[in-house]
Amino acid sequence: MQRVLGIDPGLRITGYGAVALAVGRREPALIEAGVIRLSAKLSLEERLAQLFTDLTSLIVELKPTAVAVEKLYAHYKHPRTAILMAHARGVILLAAQQHDLPVIHLPATEVKKAVTGYGHASKEQMQRAVQAQMGLDQLPKPPDVADAIAIALTAARRLTLKVR
Amino acid sequence: MQRVLGIDPGLRITGYGAVALAVGRREPALIEAGVIRLSAKLSLEERLAQLFTDLTSLIVELKPTAVAVEKLYAHYKHPRTAILMAHARGVILLAAQQHDLPVIHLPATEVKKAVTGYGHASKEQMQRAVQAQMGLDQLPKPPDVADAIAIALTAARRLTLKVR
Repeated sequence: MQRVLGIDPGLRITGYGAVALAVGRREPALIEAGVIRLSAKLSLEERLAQLFTDLTSLIVELKPTAVAVEKLYAHYKHPRTAILMAHARGVILLAAQQHDLPVIHLPATEVKKAVTGYGHASKEQMQRAVQAQMGLDQLPKPPDVADAIAIALTAARRLTLKVR
Repeated sequence: MQRVLGIDPGLRITGYGAVALAVGRREPALIEAGVIRLSAKLSLEERLAQLFTDLTSLIVELKPTAVAVEKLYAHYKHPRTAILMAHARGVILLAAQQHDLPVIHLPATEVKKAVTGYGHASKEQMQRAVQAQMGLDQLPKPPDVADAIAIALTAARRLTLKVR
């Protein structure tokens, strides 16, 4: 069974969502989702260390067979944010590699399009689409959780297509 | 005795240089310097894992009391390079934090000015200045090594000023 852990990295909030695709099933099911919150009072290196520890625990607990993250682009509107996010992304990729997990890098527009049909969907559109497709009682909050589930879902569907 | 490990991060070549400041001495002395080379054939996550492993070994071996790195800015000419470098910087900061080492973040212009007197010194000027000030027989090569030594030297001098 494929289990994909999707991650939406950040130095304040990192969203995660794990989906599993059972043999014979068409669509992945949600296993668990949530956020890792890092205090703004901590230094950059303290936050990275906490993120790494928490993510490593998640990998051990959820036993994914692959990790999925969004690709980072250079043409961000907020280069400072992109550079800080890349620090977080670095330790996330390290945690995946240390557990020999393949990493699937997905363009953000592909994730949005796969889930909402529209490559520039808003955060709320993403939350509603994820809620509907995963059959959730409540809207996934904060938006980072919905994004992480969407990343995992898109990666899992890609793996399904490859298997067939 | 203060021992500062300076690091110039990169996903192809990461330069490092360790300097020690003995009690009663005015100027730090070079302990060791070199580069960690990462194969371009490896994936981003494989390179990050190798960098992390090699850097952790260096910390264990050289036993620094502090780690120094240059600050990253958002106004880079090459945002793609800056974002990739930030991944490497993330795992470097993680390695330092895991060993409870304080991290000194220095502006690149301060390092250049401290070593050459000029905030926009060329790579070659940095190499020659580091060679002269550390009393090295040969020009430190590649430039990443000279930069790493310069970062360590500037940070060590800062620590000296604070102590007095």
